[in-house]
Amino acid sequence: MLGLMQEWPLLCHKLIDHAALQHGNREIVSRSIEGPIVRTTYAEVHARARKVAQRLEREGYGLGDRIATLAWNTARHLEAWYGIMGVGAIYHTLNPRLFPEQLVWIMNHAEDKAIFVDLTFMPLLEKIAGSVKSLKQVIVLTDSAHMPQTALPNVVCYEDWLAGADGDFRWKTFDENTAAGMCYTSGTTGEPKGVLYSHRSNVLHAMIAAMPDAMGISSRDVVMPVVPMFHANAWGLGQSGPMTGAKIIMPGSKMDGASIYELLDGEKVTFTAAVPTIWLMLLQYLEETGKKLPYLNRVVIGGSAAPRAIIQKFQRDYGVEVIHAWGMTEMSPLGTLCTMKPEQAALDDDALLDLKQTQGYTPFGIEMRITDDDNVAQPWDGVTFGRLKVRGPAVSSAYYGNAGTEQFDAEGWFDTGDVAHINADGYMRITDRAKDVIKSGGEWISTIELENLAVGHQDVAEAAVIGVHHPKWDERPLLVIVRKPGKQLTKEDLLAFMQGKVAKWWMPDDVAFVDEIPHTATGKIQKTTLRKQFEDYKLPTE
Amino acid sequence: MLGLMQEWPLLCHKLIDHAALQHGNREIVSRSIEGPIVRTTYAEVHARARKVAQRLEREGYGLGDRIATLAWNTARHLEAWYGIMGVGAIYHTLNPRLFPEQLVWIMNHAEDKAIFVDLTFMPLLEKIAGSVKSLKQVIVLTDSAHMPQTALPNVVCYEDWLAGADGDFRWKTFDENTAAGMCYTSGTTGEPKGVLYSHRSNVLHAMIAAMPDAMGISSRDVVMPVVPMFHANAWGLGQSGPMTGAKIIMPGSKMDGASIYELLDGEKVTFTAAVPTIWLMLLQYLEETGKKLPYLNRVVIGGSAAPRAIIQKFQRDYGVEVIHAWGMTEMSPLGTLCTMKPEQAALDDDALLDLKQTQGYTPFGIEMRITDDDNVAQPWDGVTFGRLKVRGPAVSSAYYGNAGTEQFDAEGWFDTGDVAHINADGYMRITDRAKDVIKSGGEWISTIELENLAVGHQDVAEAAVIGVHHPKWDERPLLVIVRKPGKQLTKEDLLAFMQGKVAKWWMPDDVAFVDEIPHTATGKIQKTTLRKQFEDYKLPTE
Repeated sequence: MLGLMQEWPLLCHKLIDHAALQHGNREIVSRSIEGPIVRTTYAEVHARARKVAQRLEREGYGLGDRIATLAWNTARHLEAWYGIMGVGAIYHTLNPRLFPEQLVWIMNHAEDKAIFVDLTFMPLLEKIAGSVKSLKQVIVLTDSAHMPQTALPNVVCYEDWLAGADGDFRWKTFDENTAAGMCYTSGTTGEPKGVLYSHRSNVLHAMIAAMPDAMGISSRDVVMPVVPMFHANAWGLGQSGPMTGAKIIMPGSKMDGASIYELLDGEKVTFTAAVPTIWLMLLQYLEETGKKLPYLNRVVIGGSAAPRAIIQKFQRDYGVEVIHAWGMTEMSPLGTLCTMKPEQAALDDDALLDLKQTQGYTPFGIEMRITDDDNVAQPWDGVTFGRLKVRGPAVSSAYYGNAGTEQFDAEGWFDTGDVAHINADGYMRITDRAKDVIKSGGEWISTIELENLAVGHQDVAEAAVIGVHHPKWDERPLLVIVRKPGKQLTKEDLLAFMQGKVAKWWMPDDVAFVDEIPHTATGKIQKTTLRKQFEDYKLPTE
Repeated sequence: MLGLMQEWPLLCHKLIDHAALQHGNREIVSRSIEGPIVRTTYAEVHARARKVAQRLEREGYGLGDRIATLAWNTARHLEAWYGIMGVGAIYHTLNPRLFPEQLVWIMNHAEDKAIFVDLTFMPLLEKIAGSVKSLKQVIVLTDSAHMPQTALPNVVCYEDWLAGADGDFRWKTFDENTAAGMCYTSGTTGEPKGVLYSHRSNVLHAMIAAMPDAMGISSRDVVMPVVPMFHANAWGLGQSGPMTGAKIIMPGSKMDGASIYELLDGEKVTFTAAVPTIWLMLLQYLEETGKKLPYLNRVVIGGSAAPRAIIQKFQRDYGVEVIHAWGMTEMSPLGTLCTMKPEQAALDDDALLDLKQTQGYTPFGIEMRITDDDNVAQPWDGVTFGRLKVRGPAVSSAYYGNAGTEQFDAEGWFDTGDVAHINADGYMRITDRAKDVIKSGGEWISTIELENLAVGHQDVAEAAVIGVHHPKWDERPLLVIVRKPGKQLTKEDLLAFMQGKVAKWWMPDDVAFVDEIPHTATGKIQKTTLRKQFEDYKLPTE
């Protein structure tokens, strides 16, 4: 027997409808690409998104079409998102930090038909547009006064294009499982894989993200997503903002400490989110200038593990609560958030900092488990680590075009490719990537923990740990080090420094000093290349 | 094109699974029906709910079966809910305040097969059980030491019955639109109508309810649902609690000021919810004893309009934030909540109190509009009032057995039967029931506002306003008054008191003094009876 409740599909345009109706005058403030700070409201964003949809429909775009965006966080980008989704098309956020050839590959794979592009990225687009066969139209997110000269065909100016619509458009309706957005993961190996969000997953994710124990976003918050919309949906803030009616501050292209501070202070931002690098720049700026953060209440740190020093500075020196979080493009992206359960809220300062270095626990709507290589669940004891697997309504079931099927199992668990431990209270900590973890005599060694330890030495500029073949143990850790300029650090010094700070059998069997460690386009250490480089390395312990 | 996100149906048992996994040791504290305060945890409630499901399945109950509950708020009642839903059956909460013949009608209409019953209600059940043809089994929510003597057949003791299960049970899975719960509305006219909740509507409602701008429930909250589970799902707290991992305090059968205070204080309750009558009793108790509410942070008041004096006392004298709310059984039940948008948060004390008398605004997931009798939308100006209509994923699409179809229109709007105005900021205030509002010369007059005004006179015990036929204006208001014992209030005195406090053309045309005003079983004024009583009344203004 079915319930007798209304069919009310979870569609993304209902988020902006709600914002316009109940929070119409709430501001959206952007640092524009043209320079000045510009102010608009949910009511205006809503009206303009309907114009975007009306224009897109008139150009012949509709259900299922992929429309790319190559843009910073601004109100215009947000309008474009809602306009694209409201006509039933799919926003496809492109990461401008990828290599041009990767972008060409991705756009061809997605068969993008049109693109909304910021002025900043016109030179990049000019390089690649000709290689994207499906691309029919370029919409430059600016006004006529700022339109650049370009040799690209079929280019229109966003503001002129919008002016040709009266906004008398009714959102399309369709099944809530219809695709709404797309984002490619830039793995360290293999080809990029496309994640395809649905309207349902975006709406449920926005609800999960806004809950009091997750990001806890209310209409009284002033939210600044520093994390870009092209970085896994700005961690859901482009949806949670309109859902809750929070004021939104869009930082545009300027992410340096002074620019971020100007907005945090000037707009009285209460909530913000970004990767650790951004916060390092901000904290350095604050230290140099002696400035404070009187309005900021919480900061979400994700994308990579938040160093203890950053958490400590925010919490102790500036009174800002750090919410350390973990997620993946495949998870829309939120997985866990380190907020306090009542028992944890009573911890003393140091214990709290220890806990804050975990990535936290799963809110309702995300399930997680850790397993060994045979898919046997491992205990939540804070020590045992295993492959981290997740399930939920905003977790991928497959990649676009059916790539990477080995990551999905029959019970619906998605293998994150991460290795983690979970403590008895449910707090999870990522300890490694599954393909990087070293399997020594059947036991696992975390390369990340060894790297974190090694970079604690004052003469180390960068450290990477890889597993190297060993006849007895299968694999043993090799520590690869880039010394700081002018430093003469030796193997013996470094191992002595690490001694006692980690289990004996975790200690690296050798240290190799190099001039450079290879990186991906997005700045991650390229361990595949490194492993290839040290393929025939003979450990002294053999 | 569909998104590629996981099929993860929104099923209620996932709420208690989540609570057990991430908040397993968090306490559920009940004032038991047997007397003592008993403590359990989410982990135990989860384990016992699985035993309930296992036993129900063994008895042959399953998908779509209606299983009644006639019980107060206790952990056992909560276990029963999750056990019933987890086997795919439908919990059917019965309101013990209904007349026995109404309960018989409802149970026969629902075809309840079994019933979980509290000791308190055994005498009531003994009166009615024989008249319910479908009823096969009675499970008394107690242990063997407290089992009552009864002549009813097929009676089992809950604890003994549970002891026969090992809890090795896997929740059934099914479509998220499957019916999960049932509750009949006790309208003032006509037969009761059955509302049928789905798993999806219950889960989405729990998310909507827990959001920061709604009830804002976190794992650090201690939540006491004083509102009974048989009163529209305890306003969703039986679901939002496990979803967020909040500690839950169940008050059992004792709702007097001293008993409620004992739990508020002893368990450090931070959040509670009930109808105004409960809070009147508590505030009176606090005034008599001089006690304070140091832990309580917010109180939700709903069910009927919260008087200004109650809101003022909570906020000013006890520092407790009042969340005035409105909803209906047909809405799971939340519709609007009076929490502060940033502009409102800046209001001064008096303006804030004025605003707090509105029932607030809709969170995302609930749409509302006001229309005239021709379904034309009316402006949000805080003055114009119209029929209040709602839409959403947790709003009824029909009644069980297809009763009351005239309340649902083709665009999916449900006519609440209430009349309301909405101000420019989206805050809604109920002004009347649609069937009670007086239509005088094409304009509407709110009977509730007139009644509230009249009861403000010190000699008035109770007031009711009804429309009486008038040859020129169609209808004009008649004020029906019960004087306080020994008082000699006259029509002239009362009208003079009201003069100037309401629009001239709203002033009642006459006052009738009576010994008693008729009420329904749930304490509402029975205006149909009153209108019949004054059917031939001749107004002096004719």
